[in-house]
Amino acid sequence: MVWMMRSAQAADFAPNLSHESEIPLYRQLYEHIALRIRTGELGRGERLPATRELAGLLGLNRTTVSAAYDALETDGLITGQVGRGSFVTGGTEPSAGGVDWGSLLDRADASPAGPAGPFANEIASFVMSRPSRELFPLDDFRASCQAVLSRPDLGSILQLGSPSGYEPLRRHLMDEARRQSLARPGDDLLITNGCQQALDLIGRVLLRPGDTVAVEDPVYPGLKNLLTGLGVQLIGIPVGADGMDTVHLERVLERERPRFLVVTSNFQNPTGATLSLPARRALLDAARAARVPVVENDAYGELRYQGEPLPALKQLDEHGGTVLLRSFSKVSFPGLRVGWVVGPKPLLDRLRQAKESADLHTDQLSQAVLLDFAQSGRLEAHSARIRQAGAARLAATLDSCRRYLPAGTRYTQPQGGMNLWVRLPEPLDAGELLPRAQKEGVAYLPGRYFAVSRLDASALRLSFAGLEPEQIRNGLAVLGRIVAEELGNASRRVEPSSALV
Amino acid sequence: MVWMMRSAQAADFAPNLSHESEIPLYRQLYEHIALRIRTGELGRGERLPATRELAGLLGLNRTTVSAAYDALETDGLITGQVGRGSFVTGGTEPSAGGVDWGSLLDRADASPAGPAGPFANEIASFVMSRPSRELFPLDDFRASCQAVLSRPDLGSILQLGSPSGYEPLRRHLMDEARRQSLARPGDDLLITNGCQQALDLIGRVLLRPGDTVAVEDPVYPGLKNLLTGLGVQLIGIPVGADGMDTVHLERVLERERPRFLVVTSNFQNPTGATLSLPARRALLDAARAARVPVVENDAYGELRYQGEPLPALKQLDEHGGTVLLRSFSKVSFPGLRVGWVVGPKPLLDRLRQAKESADLHTDQLSQAVLLDFAQSGRLEAHSARIRQAGAARLAATLDSCRRYLPAGTRYTQPQGGMNLWVRLPEPLDAGELLPRAQKEGVAYLPGRYFAVSRLDASALRLSFAGLEPEQIRNGLAVLGRIVAEELGNASRRVEPSSALV
Repeated sequence: MVWMMRSAQAADFAPNLSHESEIPLYRQLYEHIALRIRTGELGRGERLPATRELAGLLGLNRTTVSAAYDALETDGLITGQVGRGSFVTGGTEPSAGGVDWGSLLDRADASPAGPAGPFANEIASFVMSRPSRELFPLDDFRASCQAVLSRPDLGSILQLGSPSGYEPLRRHLMDEARRQSLARPGDDLLITNGCQQALDLIGRVLLRPGDTVAVEDPVYPGLKNLLTGLGVQLIGIPVGADGMDTVHLERVLERERPRFLVVTSNFQNPTGATLSLPARRALLDAARAARVPVVENDAYGELRYQGEPLPALKQLDEHGGTVLLRSFSKVSFPGLRVGWVVGPKPLLDRLRQAKESADLHTDQLSQAVLLDFAQSGRLEAHSARIRQAGAARLAATLDSCRRYLPAGTRYTQPQGGMNLWVRLPEPLDAGELLPRAQKEGVAYLPGRYFAVSRLDASALRLSFAGLEPEQIRNGLAVLGRIVAEELGNASRRVEPSSALV
Repeated sequence: MVWMMRSAQAADFAPNLSHESEIPLYRQLYEHIALRIRTGELGRGERLPATRELAGLLGLNRTTVSAAYDALETDGLITGQVGRGSFVTGGTEPSAGGVDWGSLLDRADASPAGPAGPFANEIASFVMSRPSRELFPLDDFRASCQAVLSRPDLGSILQLGSPSGYEPLRRHLMDEARRQSLARPGDDLLITNGCQQALDLIGRVLLRPGDTVAVEDPVYPGLKNLLTGLGVQLIGIPVGADGMDTVHLERVLERERPRFLVVTSNFQNPTGATLSLPARRALLDAARAARVPVVENDAYGELRYQGEPLPALKQLDEHGGTVLLRSFSKVSFPGLRVGWVVGPKPLLDRLRQAKESADLHTDQLSQAVLLDFAQSGRLEAHSARIRQAGAARLAATLDSCRRYLPAGTRYTQPQGGMNLWVRLPEPLDAGELLPRAQKEGVAYLPGRYFAVSRLDASALRLSFAGLEPEQIRNGLAVLGRIVAEELGNASRRVEPSSALV
């Protein structure tokens, strides 16, 4: 690609940044530049001012400008070239005639680039948060398929279905939800294509461009992309060892009144953190006081490897302000897209309408197979094996972190799920470290994929559930050595590098 | 439900209606009132002015006001009570505390009520546009499932997949599309949950609230609901025997520059009309001149029972402005939600991102089963049987229309698909006739479900594909008798009734 060398002048940038806002300065700057790229004010190939120059002009810290550029690069809007500067890559391009797809598509946001693909000499890839294929109980799955294929109502399973879901599965899930006090009187249940679609439908029904939504910070990219794709401004609530910081949350809910709050009660992705019982109560109180609905994403709750389960927010909430999302995909087969939502009927009525517009209904073959998988007891047997394997993998991960990561490294101590959050010692940048780690056979996702309002460049996510304990140990031994060496190199340098922009 | 009796005053209504607009007056009035209901200006339980009163006040024909009220009722925003008037049913209601779901949900549009459910003494329900369950080749389906279950890569089918679709299926469909000249160089293919999701993703990527989209008029409710749910204004292009009126279309495209045009090239739902070859060329020329993208929905194309197939718009378009939607659901098993989109790569890249946000990917079990169903030749064998049965059903329908419907009734003469469009003689209203038809064992969907810019109260859709020829004949015999009788009654009345409002 040949770059046009016209430079955007630093003087072109005069954003109204507010030091008072909940939105951090780097994010405000990001939004300002992203908007100018998307509207075509900054054209493809234009060079952005150097970080030092723009920082001076705007009276900002240079790291703030670097963080904004970093986020723009992650989102595919600019690219950094060593020694040359940063160039606009997104935005408009003149069309060759006929329909101008480029300018039509301008208004849609580009997503961040996905995780790195497979790489040579792989020792351990901690990139994907998903179960291990080797643990799939294929014979049990085949048995459930056979049961469905021999059912007398197979024809009706293959016929056009209801937007609410395959009724026998819906009834089964509703009975389970009632038994576990997860459904209140007047609640309804809708089957979706996994939790992701449930979040999407909730967004479609409750949000308009320009609205705000409160989410965990860091949070998994699937949720960030979904919400920013709906034109929504995210407010990140910091996640600590006990999950969301509820003091911070209370202030944000009161001050900003977001349209709703999305929270992962158990084994949050990416941190692995679980909301403590007091934090659950505080969160519900704060949400109720501000009259902000709570969307409880509990895709991981069944994957507890140690400790006692905590009551769901949906169970604790006596005021009907919570909607609960669950899914088969993390505990059974992610390739079958079946999840569900339980919540107040007025909301569920609208979600069902949105579901019908989105794709009529969820695939019925998979719904019928998963119902048999659950009712035959095969799901519970499989869950037990998954939890056993998960416990060994989590133990190997925590043990290897202790043994191999150098002093000054911090990491979460999840009791379940698939992920663990690591903060490298100052001044290391997990994104900068990644190319070397990959070259030596280890991959992970750096913190910038998960950042909402606060970019923690030292952070990275380790997804351990898909790896054997041996792989985990080997991978973390390599990563620990690299971190230690880079830490040594950094301490010998006068100034930390900032290679990305 | 107890109605509050505060009445909205006719003087409250002072909409700015334009006689010049492409949007018909009744629809403008509808939008004006719907907005006031949704914003809470007109509260639940308020009585609307009588149609006569409002017509006088606004200088409109009373039938215009009635048509607006009828559409408001269809969309669940008002309800008519005989002898009492029309009352607001949608909109806000004070909440009992905690989260106020009612007011949060206000901003989402309510969908029209669905078709009537099952009814007593059913002779023939022409309501559902779907294939006959009795024709599903269950043994062939089981054989394809068995083939998938014994595949060595079953584990990877059950693992998290790609947003693009199950790669072997995607390759198969892309090869087919290239073989049929449906894919141009530089085109890409994305697998979706049927055509409905493809339309939804295109809407998400290309539309913002307030945009306009050109569609056929009448058009099936799934598309209307989807687009109005995205906050879009629809412009209806009349459909005649040769499909869309391309002269009208050309004027609309030039004047209104909609974001895109959705067109069903073969056996349109609800009319059954097929675009002639000259109309296809004229449509493409008009779209190209106005630089408006064409979304070609071809869910029914494989269901041709007579005559020669016509080239797809996607084949005829040499300028890359057309995107083609297809699906397995009408020719195989609607309960499995698998369709696909073929079009220019820049658009497809964005659709893939939107797909990932919407639900990660389409269910992989069904994708693998349908691939085997196609590659084993079972799909083609099934299609041949479906076409044979469809031909008999279509012939029975056309024959019965000729025999049983009274003079003055007009109906389309489709060469395939699932639907036929009937216009009853003046002054009959197909919606008013429906309760009596249902009581006597026959159901259909009246025209108001399909109206975009022009409400044709005399029209109704007959979906014949799911019925045996014998059922079709019996049903149309009953319907013909009812129509003839009601026509006799109407001619004895001084003035046609307008019972709905």
